[in-house]
Amino acid sequence: MPSQSLAELREQVLLANLALVKSGLVTLSWGNASGVDRVAGVMVIKPSGVPYDRLRSEDLVVVSIEDGRVVAGDLRPSSDTPTHLRLYRAFPEIGGVVHTHSRWATSWAQAGRSIPPFGTTHADHFHGAVPVTRPLLRDEVEGSYEAETGEVILETITSLGLGPVEMPGILVASHGPFTWGHDAPDAAANAVALEAVAAMASETIRLNPTAKPVPDYLIDRHYLRKHGPSAYYGQKDH
Amino acid sequence: MPSQSLAELREQVLLANLALVKSGLVTLSWGNASGVDRVAGVMVIKPSGVPYDRLRSEDLVVVSIEDGRVVAGDLRPSSDTPTHLRLYRAFPEIGGVVHTHSRWATSWAQAGRSIPPFGTTHADHFHGAVPVTRPLLRDEVEGSYEAETGEVILETITSLGLGPVEMPGILVASHGPFTWGHDAPDAAANAVALEAVAAMASETIRLNPTAKPVPDYLIDRHYLRKHGPSAYYGQKDH
Amino acid sequence: MPSQSLAELREQVLLANLALVKSGLVTLSWGNASGVDRVAGVMVIKPSGVPYDRLRSEDLVVVSIEDGRVVAGDLRPSSDTPTHLRLYRAFPEIGGVVHTHSRWATSWAQAGRSIPPFGTTHADHFHGAVPVTRPLLRDEVEGSYEAETGEVILETITSLGLGPVEMPGILVASHGPFTWGHDAPDAAANAVALEAVAAMASETIRLNPTAKPVPDYLIDRHYLRKHGPSAYYGQKDH
Amino acid sequence: MPSQSLAELREQVLLANLALVKSGLVTLSWGNASGVDRVAGVMVIKPSGVPYDRLRSEDLVVVSIEDGRVVAGDLRPSSDTPTHLRLYRAFPEIGGVVHTHSRWATSWAQAGRSIPPFGTTHADHFHGAVPVTRPLLRDEVEGSYEAETGEVILETITSLGLGPVEMPGILVASHGPFTWGHDAPDAAANAVALEAVAAMASETIRLNPTAKPVPDYLIDRHYLRKHGPSAYYGQKDH
Repeated sequence: MPSQSLAELREQVLLANLALVKSGLVTLSWGNASGVDRVAGVMVIKPSGVPYDRLRSEDLVVVSIEDGRVVAGDLRPSSDTPTHLRLYRAFPEIGGVVHTHSRWATSWAQAGRSIPPFGTTHADHFHGAVPVTRPLLRDEVEGSYEAETGEVILETITSLGLGPVEMPGILVASHGPFTWGHDAPDAAANAVALEAVAAMASETIRLNPTAKPVPDYLIDRHYLRKHGPSAYYGQKDH
Repeated sequence: MPSQSLAELREQVLLANLALVKSGLVTLSWGNASGVDRVAGVMVIKPSGVPYDRLRSEDLVVVSIEDGRVVAGDLRPSSDTPTHLRLYRAFPEIGGVVHTHSRWATSWAQAGRSIPPFGTTHADHFHGAVPVTRPLLRDEVEGSYEAETGEVILETITSLGLGPVEMPGILVASHGPFTWGHDAPDAAANAVALEAVAAMASETIRLNPTAKPVPDYLIDRHYLRKHGPSAYYGQKDH
Repeated sequence: MPSQSLAELREQVLLANLALVKSGLVTLSWGNASGVDRVAGVMVIKPSGVPYDRLRSEDLVVVSIEDGRVVAGDLRPSSDTPTHLRLYRAFPEIGGVVHTHSRWATSWAQAGRSIPPFGTTHADHFHGAVPVTRPLLRDEVEGSYEAETGEVILETITSLGLGPVEMPGILVASHGPFTWGHDAPDAAANAVALEAVAAMASETIRLNPTAKPVPDYLIDRHYLRKHGPSAYYGQKDH
Repeated sequence: MPSQSLAELREQVLLANLALVKSGLVTLSWGNASGVDRVAGVMVIKPSGVPYDRLRSEDLVVVSIEDGRVVAGDLRPSSDTPTHLRLYRAFPEIGGVVHTHSRWATSWAQAGRSIPPFGTTHADHFHGAVPVTRPLLRDEVEGSYEAETGEVILETITSLGLGPVEMPGILVASHGPFTWGHDAPDAAANAVALEAVAAMASETIRLNPTAKPVPDYLIDRHYLRKHGPSAYYGQKDH
């Protein structure tokens, strides 16, 4: 990734936020996208509770990754800021994080179920079942709730032996999906993919209650043709 | 809330009505939003059966809250006017009321079920299950039907020990949702939230027929971070 | 209804056809709307298989109600023309007919189930369950299929003791919905209402498999407040 | 079909690709449409992984049908190119192929179920149940995967005794739908029809778990009124 000015990062994060709206993942002002500048050590994130149709790049808030202080911006950052920060600190490979309350992925999160890989659409983006976290404990909810949400995400990904590139998303139990990627637009694309995968998994088990996940060799083939060293999906410079 | 001219109130109520359409909650001309001027003692409401795409602020009807007489406007007010009036009289805290026949909330109303709080999306707007009223009795239906609809709403909210701020909406059995808020746009936002919550609750119980409501401490946390004295969601001046 | 020129009728039928598209009831070129001029004894109907986005009022086809011959127009009328004609001949009260393959109503038709009146949305438009026809017999399908479709609609409405004003629509088994009204836009509005009612009835029985139809007094109240002699829904000149 | 320049074919294939987006069948960059010039022996296909909103006709890739080499174009052709080629080689009657991951058809594919003909909407486009392939074997997935996908499609169509005109589509198990037609727009229309048919079949079996396919005489009537020698659906020059 070439070096990028803070203005460019703001613009990119703004577009990622608006892509969520355009893709139908957003109701009211629910949801947020962020992106990082690793060199400057900052994250750019949507302000809290601002309507998307009035959002401008200068409204975005710049937050220090190390200590979470607001570095620039007049508005409060998203209330989910501590969750985003936990992810950036733990996963140096990622450059963007997205959180939504999109209908289908949130329903799986509310049902407390991970999403099985029922087809190639899933395998193209997620290398195995998209996991759901355990419920947060009372102490976690009543304490630093949003930071604890980040911790339970990390705990889940780690305990499953997964990395953030092979599994670029998760369902937080009783809450909703978080996704990430190499930058904010990539994290937004993963949120869109997760919502489509969630909707189709719901319908799949309705049509076939004993549907089985696809075999590992099909997951590997689809994942690797897009993400592996000899990837042949997409254009070479992508 | 600063003092507002009647023209400003008309404009605000018009926008709230149109927001229902834009959010996909309206089929044909079903649904209506109103707002009040407590000082003047009047409610501004959508006229009955007028297509939304021709609705202008001067078509809105001004009705006395005390006695329900039309104070200004050439058109008949919404047939649901007596229901709105009952709510404004009983709940001095509210400044806007919305009624729709939105697909998911209406289906729960037709099924005669209250909507359990399955996640944080719900808890962000409704402090507990969104209740459904009892069915109206024959006498109520054949009498002052729309006023009785208001009475059964009040009876339900009161008997559950709820207040209109913690529970800004309800399902009228076999009919559909009513929501309210501090003004008409807030009532419309609650209608949008209720529809999303209803859709996700449906899918949640399909994915997990034994899904349990989230614990009270999670409901409290989400409700209070938005509405409590130390709210930290949204901007300070909101 | 004041006298109307043929050009005005063409324009009205065109708008009714386009309203079906705008309301999301149309896939590809499936569906058609017609309207009549009772004095001239003609029906104006959509041509067969013409894409909606190229449809102009001069493409509409004028057909004699008495004998079904094309009176004006260079294109073939909709293949469903004989069904429309049967309805106009049997129901002098109606001035418009609509047929669609809209998703939810067609699913009920394919399931061979009539739609129970589960709420006031239904009662506002249909005075009782929306019936489904019996399946057409082999001879009917292999004979004058589209005319026989009209006959089975009439047989069903008549055998239930219903009139075309109280029941402005029906589901043809294994096929899809037909609706009618006092003119083409009214028939289109009933098609929109039927689709919404069908979708909500599906969800209602999923949420409550033992859901019961609403009592007759609620159906009567809603139907009569819109359609009865002392109707108070909508504006007086409507 | 009159002779067509390569520029015209590019334009037609571009429009077919964009029609998939407009019809709501496409998420992100999933899906592709192609068309052929049988005289020149080439196929024009969407490039791999290029966003639809930036797609121009000059981005389309021209590929030799005989040996699959890129004849013109700077970008990589769709990764599904070998599947398209297998279909063109086996079915000389077809001039267009479409692949999508559309929600409802993909869910049936993931469930491993063929779609029964529950109504006339289905029969208007598909002359019998839309089949699902067997799952690909490990060797097929790890070998020339996309070519093997084409082979399993051909194996399924052939083993059922079907031809590509009577059955212009199929579901690849655990993957999604492929459709074809006399040109790229026709293949796209069949993809739209398949998605609608899949959605309604899902709802039909939910409303009536014992729903039966329609009888053959109804399938024949609808199929033949559109596609038979005495077709009377649509305009004569279509």
